[in-house]
Amino acid sequence: MGAELSTICRGCWQNMHMPIPIRGPLAVPFRLAGIKISRMNPNLCTICETMFTKVKRKKQITIEATVLFADLRGYTNLSEHACADNVVDMLHGFYDDCAFAIWERDGIINKFIGDAVLAVFNFPIEGDDHARQAVLAGVEIMQRCADKKELVARDSDDEPIGIGIGIHTGVTSIGEVGTAYKDFTVIGSVVNIASRVQAAAKPGEILVTGEVYPHVADLYPGLERHDRQLKGIEHAVSTYSLMVAA
Amino acid sequence: MGAELSTICRGCWQNMHMPIPIRGPLAVPFRLAGIKISRMNPNLCTICETMFTKVKRKKQITIEATVLFADLRGYTNLSEHACADNVVDMLHGFYDDCAFAIWERDGIINKFIGDAVLAVFNFPIEGDDHARQAVLAGVEIMQRCADKKELVARDSDDEPIGIGIGIHTGVTSIGEVGTAYKDFTVIGSVVNIASRVQAAAKPGEILVTGEVYPHVADLYPGLERHDRQLKGIEHAVSTYSLMVAA
Repeated sequence: MGAELSTICRGCWQNMHMPIPIRGPLAVPFRLAGIKISRMNPNLCTICETMFTKVKRKKQITIEATVLFADLRGYTNLSEHACADNVVDMLHGFYDDCAFAIWERDGIINKFIGDAVLAVFNFPIEGDDHARQAVLAGVEIMQRCADKKELVARDSDDEPIGIGIGIHTGVTSIGEVGTAYKDFTVIGSVVNIASRVQAAAKPGEILVTGEVYPHVADLYPGLERHDRQLKGIEHAVSTYSLMVAA
Repeated sequence: MGAELSTICRGCWQNMHMPIPIRGPLAVPFRLAGIKISRMNPNLCTICETMFTKVKRKKQITIEATVLFADLRGYTNLSEHACADNVVDMLHGFYDDCAFAIWERDGIINKFIGDAVLAVFNFPIEGDDHARQAVLAGVEIMQRCADKKELVARDSDDEPIGIGIGIHTGVTSIGEVGTAYKDFTVIGSVVNIASRVQAAAKPGEILVTGEVYPHVADLYPGLERHDRQLKGIEHAVSTYSLMVAA
């Protein structure tokens, strides 16, 4: 678990057995050489973001990973009404809650997209239980947000504010895309399915696929399976609803 | 127009009248001090990305801006079938086409999100005709992609591959969100409406709002207005369809 901050980059250590200092006096010469703490996860360094082309000598690698999408619902509507300051405060809180919950379980924040976050587990910090850790991160995001008053709709006419989460796991491609603008991202059907599953989740709901559920079935026993037809996905996707917050 | 590469950062010059060298021998000491060319646009420096908190002493500023969303359609489906290499090649081409078309017209790439791009015009490089420039960038993205064989569906059963584009303009908030994970992004209804308009565009279609159309009415005269109810947007949004590629 990543609760305590590491003095060396855990990604470089796990993937290359290289101890790259990211905190403390030994980190100073590395910082001067341009190697800093990664924004994706505070236990990683910026080498991890560009590891593919520089270290692995290829643009993409194929790995087992779990992808989590979380989305602040009712936010589009709210940003039409509420004053910009309130909307920004809510987004600030959402970004921070997501970051802490994801980093605590060794995930990386691949990107925030307005009112949504895309997180990846099992790369570059590896862990056998990445699907389970992703679900626990999702549960913590829900709990942290439920504690916040701002996430309650102010007006009975408003769409209720809440978070929808979708999680899928499988073999996926990760790496750099583009030449003019290089972007570190996850590519392929795992991320697409996770995104569509998230879109199908109701506010307060964590929806996981049939590939994720066995990893948390002990925590959420006997849930009913729903096979869903999702936009852009040809085959039906089995989903399980882990929780709907009150 | 931004076709030629600038030797100083155009954002710092326009916003602060500071000549920050980003190319040539004068740029070397700045690079050593950590000031580099921005990924958002090759005529900007990394100061522009963090200008709000450091220079403007606030986290967000409110500006007139045009937001363009472009999305590679049929890609979700294709990534289920095609071999990963083909899918990645297609994405590489899409990222590059978008980058060149947007940068050429002084826009910034705020982020790529899998098979979609979010671009902003009029910040930090200002221009009175930002709505028009955004439309011209959209047209160029369509043309560049139409020239590519990869963007043609391989199989008659496949959903046709094509690009959908949505453009909206208005007053919006731009700045840094989050404290643990800081992200430079656009916030508020302009970006939400642009995103929903893009989702309504068919493959090959550029859909612009009633706020954008007057800026290009001389290029596309006499188009019919369609008022649309879009997900999460309470009021109807007027749209005009500029082109549907063959």
